[in-house]
Amino acid sequence: MNPTTAQKPGVSIVATSVRYPRGIVDNETLGAEIGLQPKVIERLTGIQKRPHLAAGETLQDLAADACEEAILSSGLDPSNLDLMIFYTDVPTTMPENGRTLRRYYDVGAHLQHLLRQRGLEVGGQSFNIAGSCVSFLLALEVACGMVRTRARQGVLIVGATNNSFFLKDADVNTVMTFSDATAATVLAATEKPGFLGFWGRTDGRGFDAGYYEDYRTLWIDRKRVAEYAPRAMQLAWHGLLQSSGLSPGEIDLVIPHQAGLRIVEKGLELAGIPQEKVFLCLRDHGNSGATAIQAALGEAGRQGRLQDGAVIALLGFGTGWHCGAAVFRHHSRPLPAVGSFR
Amino acid sequence: MNPTTAQKPGVSIVATSVRYPRGIVDNETLGAEIGLQPKVIERLTGIQKRPHLAAGETLQDLAADACEEAILSSGLDPSNLDLMIFYTDVPTTMPENGRTLRRYYDVGAHLQHLLRQRGLEVGGQSFNIAGSCVSFLLALEVACGMVRTRARQGVLIVGATNNSFFLKDADVNTVMTFSDATAATVLAATEKPGFLGFWGRTDGRGFDAGYYEDYRTLWIDRKRVAEYAPRAMQLAWHGLLQSSGLSPGEIDLVIPHQAGLRIVEKGLELAGIPQEKVFLCLRDHGNSGATAIQAALGEAGRQGRLQDGAVIALLGFGTGWHCGAAVFRHHSRPLPAVGSFR
Repeated sequence: MNPTTAQKPGVSIVATSVRYPRGIVDNETLGAEIGLQPKVIERLTGIQKRPHLAAGETLQDLAADACEEAILSSGLDPSNLDLMIFYTDVPTTMPENGRTLRRYYDVGAHLQHLLRQRGLEVGGQSFNIAGSCVSFLLALEVACGMVRTRARQGVLIVGATNNSFFLKDADVNTVMTFSDATAATVLAATEKPGFLGFWGRTDGRGFDAGYYEDYRTLWIDRKRVAEYAPRAMQLAWHGLLQSSGLSPGEIDLVIPHQAGLRIVEKGLELAGIPQEKVFLCLRDHGNSGATAIQAALGEAGRQGRLQDGAVIALLGFGTGWHCGAAVFRHHSRPLPAVGSFR
Repeated sequence: MNPTTAQKPGVSIVATSVRYPRGIVDNETLGAEIGLQPKVIERLTGIQKRPHLAAGETLQDLAADACEEAILSSGLDPSNLDLMIFYTDVPTTMPENGRTLRRYYDVGAHLQHLLRQRGLEVGGQSFNIAGSCVSFLLALEVACGMVRTRARQGVLIVGATNNSFFLKDADVNTVMTFSDATAATVLAATEKPGFLGFWGRTDGRGFDAGYYEDYRTLWIDRKRVAEYAPRAMQLAWHGLLQSSGLSPGEIDLVIPHQAGLRIVEKGLELAGIPQEKVFLCLRDHGNSGATAIQAALGEAGRQGRLQDGAVIALLGFGTGWHCGAAVFRHHSRPLPAVGSFR
């Protein structure tokens, strides 16, 4: 570990959560729609089923559920969560009455409002990051900086994506891959060091490799993404090792962006990361886009894969082009440096 | 000044710029369209003319112009600008062929691409903030934290808003007020302290006070905003004085959000800020929404109002509800603490 990192005040992840919507689209249902055998869909994507928002479910309520779970399990008083960062890749759509689409300025403020209605007064301030599949890593780095400079005590990071709203008329590869999810993560100043390093790069040449046509159809340049993504994973892995001063053997678990099995396997191979260190959950949950890394982190927590003292790396890539990585030591019961745990 | 602030590494604004589009809509033209006398429009809003994107102009090229000017005048090597934060309040629209609308994931990456084409290799990493009229203040605080923790050397903050695209079918008050603008600001680690304090709050009850209906029409709840905004300015002013430890007499210039003359004047009165300390440019440039504070900062620089050693406060408010403030000492020729000035 880089010796300068250890001297900084600790910032740790103190809670994680994930909430998937109820509407499950399996390969049988999807195959009948797009004219492909279920086994072909699984072979192409590694995905067996994908959660989509069901009738009566809303993205904001599902995100509020994820926040509530993370806040309650953090042991922190909500008033100590004085920053909320919301991020998404979709055009922050809030359908009203199923007809017109209202694009609010600020989904973070909306969530803060919903949480207050549930008796949780969080978020001294909130803001939104709009971006691709590295947005969670960027939010983590920003949050870490804010806590480290003591500008904030605790930060709630929330991701929510309703990709299923944007699949009508989309390319068949996009339809097979994308899913919906919400996830929440709480960061706080802690006695022990949690975050050990970040690394990230943007190369603007990929700015047009993904977009929303008329705000209605998600369009992904699958060929360019498939070329870029594995190399990005390799780049991010080596960048992270260099910035953190960690050796590959010191990293216990790697959670990559859950883009699609072929892309991820190729990236892991290029980076030289052994399969047994990798956490994947795309088979059951698809690729929820920007939320996918944070949702996988929540899922890993739910499955007991975030062990006390383990060093965990997150690897991401996305259109832009962006690639990025973060690494932290997980403390299952972290001691706070500031603020009062309940 | 708060003694703990002075001990932190300095972070300063080293360059500002603003670019307005060529299409000028004056009160004569607008009055003929909406059936109001030009003098009535001016009395209601304090605005005489508003820049709107003209045929052949694009928001991204105008933003790239603003970036180029700020980078060149910063004296920094572009390679030392290793973070770019783009923010906007509009649904990040990029019209293609004047027909379909493409909403790219990431305007920051697009700008980085355009700047590379101009021979300026900036932005080790870029990300987008989507939000209301305090977004520039949030971007400043995030940038400041990143530079202060030495995660980044220099940061380019870019705001760009094409509100004029969203005024068809909008309320007459919105049509009279909103304009387009782009602005860029460069922050870097400096020997002397620049930023002296930040303050911000979100109250989610205002989340629905402004939105884009079907992504096409900007809808603002004028009555609620007019009630909230002056109190928000008062709150932000007192919050900033407390967080920075500065007295009102130590602040030389106040640049508020340029929302509309009546709202701003009422807020200044509530806060007890004398008119002669205030910089306003809405008469000639309207309210460019999220970009308005940063554009006014660039305009103040252009008019020679950012004097060496002056302490300058920025005050913002927006739907969400959000209110926020920042204060910095301006150095007209700051010495870098890290990185090489050309």
